[in-house]
Amino acid sequence: MNELPIPPKTVFAASPAEARLAALRGALAQADLHGFLVPRADEHQGEYVPKAAERLHFLTGFTGSAGLAIVLAERAAVFVDGRYTLQVEDEVDRRLYEICHLSKTPPWDWLAEATKRGQRIAYDPWLHTPDGLARLKAAAAKAGAALVPAPNAVDAIWGDRPAPPAAPVVPHGAEFAGQPSAEKRAALAKKLAADGIAAAVVTLPDSVAWLLNVRGGDVSHSPLPLSFAILRRDGSVDWFADPRKVTPELGPHFGVEVRVRPPHEFAAALAAFKGEKVQADPATAASWIFDRLEEAGATIVREADPCLLPKSCKNDVELQGIRAAHRRDGAALTKFLGWVVRAAPKGGVREIAAADRLEEYRRQNNLFRDLSFHTISGSGPHGAIVHYRANEKSDRELKPGELYLVDSGGQYPDGTTDVTRTVAIGTPTAEMKKHFTLVLKGHIALATARFPAGTSGSQLDALARLALWREGLDYDHGTGHGVGHYLCVHEGPQRISKLPNTVALRPGMIVSNEPGYYRTGAYGIRIENLVAVTKVGESEGGGDLLGFETLTLAPIDRALVDAALLTAEEIAWLDAYHARVRAEIGPQLEGEERAWLDAATAPIGAGEHGGPR
Amino acid sequence: MNELPIPPKTVFAASPAEARLAALRGALAQADLHGFLVPRADEHQGEYVPKAAERLHFLTGFTGSAGLAIVLAERAAVFVDGRYTLQVEDEVDRRLYEICHLSKTPPWDWLAEATKRGQRIAYDPWLHTPDGLARLKAAAAKAGAALVPAPNAVDAIWGDRPAPPAAPVVPHGAEFAGQPSAEKRAALAKKLAADGIAAAVVTLPDSVAWLLNVRGGDVSHSPLPLSFAILRRDGSVDWFADPRKVTPELGPHFGVEVRVRPPHEFAAALAAFKGEKVQADPATAASWIFDRLEEAGATIVREADPCLLPKSCKNDVELQGIRAAHRRDGAALTKFLGWVVRAAPKGGVREIAAADRLEEYRRQNNLFRDLSFHTISGSGPHGAIVHYRANEKSDRELKPGELYLVDSGGQYPDGTTDVTRTVAIGTPTAEMKKHFTLVLKGHIALATARFPAGTSGSQLDALARLALWREGLDYDHGTGHGVGHYLCVHEGPQRISKLPNTVALRPGMIVSNEPGYYRTGAYGIRIENLVAVTKVGESEGGGDLLGFETLTLAPIDRALVDAALLTAEEIAWLDAYHARVRAEIGPQLEGEERAWLDAATAPIGAGEHGGPR
Repeated sequence: MNELPIPPKTVFAASPAEARLAALRGALAQADLHGFLVPRADEHQGEYVPKAAERLHFLTGFTGSAGLAIVLAERAAVFVDGRYTLQVEDEVDRRLYEICHLSKTPPWDWLAEATKRGQRIAYDPWLHTPDGLARLKAAAAKAGAALVPAPNAVDAIWGDRPAPPAAPVVPHGAEFAGQPSAEKRAALAKKLAADGIAAAVVTLPDSVAWLLNVRGGDVSHSPLPLSFAILRRDGSVDWFADPRKVTPELGPHFGVEVRVRPPHEFAAALAAFKGEKVQADPATAASWIFDRLEEAGATIVREADPCLLPKSCKNDVELQGIRAAHRRDGAALTKFLGWVVRAAPKGGVREIAAADRLEEYRRQNNLFRDLSFHTISGSGPHGAIVHYRANEKSDRELKPGELYLVDSGGQYPDGTTDVTRTVAIGTPTAEMKKHFTLVLKGHIALATARFPAGTSGSQLDALARLALWREGLDYDHGTGHGVGHYLCVHEGPQRISKLPNTVALRPGMIVSNEPGYYRTGAYGIRIENLVAVTKVGESEGGGDLLGFETLTLAPIDRALVDAALLTAEEIAWLDAYHARVRAEIGPQLEGEERAWLDAATAPIGAGEHGGPR
Repeated sequence: MNELPIPPKTVFAASPAEARLAALRGALAQADLHGFLVPRADEHQGEYVPKAAERLHFLTGFTGSAGLAIVLAERAAVFVDGRYTLQVEDEVDRRLYEICHLSKTPPWDWLAEATKRGQRIAYDPWLHTPDGLARLKAAAAKAGAALVPAPNAVDAIWGDRPAPPAAPVVPHGAEFAGQPSAEKRAALAKKLAADGIAAAVVTLPDSVAWLLNVRGGDVSHSPLPLSFAILRRDGSVDWFADPRKVTPELGPHFGVEVRVRPPHEFAAALAAFKGEKVQADPATAASWIFDRLEEAGATIVREADPCLLPKSCKNDVELQGIRAAHRRDGAALTKFLGWVVRAAPKGGVREIAAADRLEEYRRQNNLFRDLSFHTISGSGPHGAIVHYRANEKSDRELKPGELYLVDSGGQYPDGTTDVTRTVAIGTPTAEMKKHFTLVLKGHIALATARFPAGTSGSQLDALARLALWREGLDYDHGTGHGVGHYLCVHEGPQRISKLPNTVALRPGMIVSNEPGYYRTGAYGIRIENLVAVTKVGESEGGGDLLGFETLTLAPIDRALVDAALLTAEEIAWLDAYHARVRAEIGPQLEGEERAWLDAATAPIGAGEHGGPR
């Protein structure tokens, strides 16, 4: 899909990227602009964007899930974070773009240095938030330049841009959602009314999906309907969605309180708020929306998307569904793990085939809808690449004496899963076992933590790292991200990370527990279960005492556990977890698969260490 | 010292506080002002202020170390944080002042609600920082009122205000400081010159003391010289200090690069920066300084006080001194602990007498200069009051069957100490032992932590709480604060706390390790050692692997340890710590005291649990 016709002005360009960059510069010059910002984000500012919005990829070749390009007349740069510093080198032509690390050379510093007094640098106000623009605007101002909104110059040169998606939007039934949309809307509207706010603009696709109890299919792996909503203080909603997406079931599902309107009416609806207070989230909503509200003379209340927090706290029905999804998903993963540790040592199993096989096991269940993200299937050294994506060129055999890391998940109407297991192919080395066991100690420390209400994920992050830290080791990614309910596999606002985050963990929130260890060029280790924050008692002061309920159910490779490094309590946790896996997954398996599970979940200490194969 | 003559206008006032409030309101009315802000801070914005600057205390009676009063014509309020909510009730007359919790009813919210359009609320620009004023100014603006700088209205009615202190300022010798002032100044000046900055204004008393290698005596318990400094990019300093403080030794100590100037020349020195870049810290420097620089047409570079970070990272000479100070201080504390556990069960030992006795033991060493803060000496339920200060009325006997908590420290020219021990008077209950042991587990978890360079105290805080959290318990204070070198016992910028703090712990930083547990009305437990951040190895990625060196040397009461709750590693830590205490403190003791130490530091498991008395 990247082989585009070369624009006429640049017939002598050496590569598509060079041609596109030249075309973009030509378009900017014609519009009397000195530069253009090309972010990864789309109009909804989510992590997941449709092909039609992959402008950064189209222009530069970069395929990562976060990044920004700045194109000036003489210079251009691509900014990526630590996850993508290796990948960007493969994908982006250094002769065309400077490659910058987002935190070491932030785009605002680069912009302040690279622009000249009087220059006009353009941005598409649909693709940036006010918060995101603030520092860039300040940087431009520092250089005496200005950031100005403009029509998207990449779209202007994108000859065969894919059509925007128009997947059908369907109701997400009460049996899954657990709370009627009307009730959610009424609760949020009550707060708006109490604060004298006329309406809140909802722009995140998963927020709209949660609020209206609908699901769509506009992006890969997440059942998102791309659309916008205005929630009014009477609890009604104006929903702006491509009419082609609207299915007949939505009429009775919505009732009269949700008005379906075509997207082109969104601007007029915002303009109608003259003199009123309107809530919008400067961290997640497009600058375009703020511009319209300001033009209209509305008073903007800058607050976080009101759906974020209630969406993250799953209700009892959602939690029941999520538990069921994990039992189902765990059975598929267990079948796969048994197969892979038996088949791979014989040779001939490659990364892509393994990922496909895992997907087949998942597809055997008729509630399976999609993967929740592209499976990470990494053998040996590929396991050390945290966001590894196997392709035909890289596809590698799973070899005896190596580790295999598989990070994958499924979308089911009752829940979203995300799980990582690392298994030994054949016999692991003592060093592999030591590192695996250190990661496991961190995983258990977090899984068994108890903490008072008010505690944030940032406060707990070190628990998962301490065993590695003692040995001078660490992992360069977060310990846990939020997960949606049949929605995005990455969901805020909670997070378990080294980065400061003051959002308290609340009952019903789902987070991943995924410490890891990566030895570049050799192997990667990650043990990931999803857990639900749950009340386990009362704190002395009167608040709730919280802990984690582990949701994911699949064996953790006993062959990689060095029991001598575990405390009695840690062994007890692993044995109890495995007993639970056996009890919940076992009845779904038969024959060889069942026998493998029974052996793989036998207590540590029962039989030789190293476990069954 | 609080018995002031009643101002003429208020002869019928019922109390000094009522009289003073009436006088202040009279003074404001005469000046056509509608209110006045009375913060706890002085001109240097430090935690420690001289009597002459205790305006909040003079006006309201409140003696806490942080707080703010706002006085309007009809209403007035005192704002304090959680440490002082009990104390403020005893000290401040509710008929005169509304009592507000700083975080629940912040002063900016109160101000926005209580002021009226057009009102002029005054503040003394010497007593507030720009950062501190920002939200108050915004709140006043929200109400249509204005905050205006004005001469201090409290000083105007404070008839017999104490004279400002003028304690002699003396050199802090290189044998203690480890680095000549000229070298410190040159290093900071190099950075200023590189950034094109003409000078940095230094206002924190401990920053000035560190930069010039001087010590003074203007406030209790911290050897601070109250003064201001301007560090110029050539490494020279203009030092603005009361001439009465200047001792002859300073001449040769300073040389020609430090110019001693009278305080009244400070304004002119700031005014001379017309057209130049001057660095000042909006979080710690008085708003008055920013006003002068703005008036002068200087460009203000708003950066943190440049002394903060280098001051916090102690050099090798400072660390050697600090270790020696702890050996000395530990001997005094050990003598005291032996005495108190022998004497108190017989009856007749009260809190104040115990604190005095501890001070006597410290004074026996001729390097002892002062306590580093007022000793917290709390028996039984008083131990549960985190900032308890015994007075004649509260002075309580140390009773058998109760716990006694003593938190104290000393100032020595080579170091500042701060230590808390909790001991059983007579036989403790099983519950006391359980809680003490949970606190000890947290203390050991932090003491033994290792972590990569870049880790902040906020990331480690939970390690000290986890054992308590598991039981639904916690403590409502930070786990660790920075400590100066013969300077303030509370020093930034590092901190180990639930509150987000992104300052990385660096080698040479001193922090306290002081988890606790408090049972209101019954007892308090705290185990506090000072620790130094130290390099213990290399992280795999190439950075330093860090850990803590425990500095404080005094027995931890074995009678309160329930060894059954400790892991083998935790017992090994305690035994090794006690062996070190015995080796380093033992040679300083004789006879009965030495015998007690030997028994008190015997390994756990040697002999019955409960230890020697």
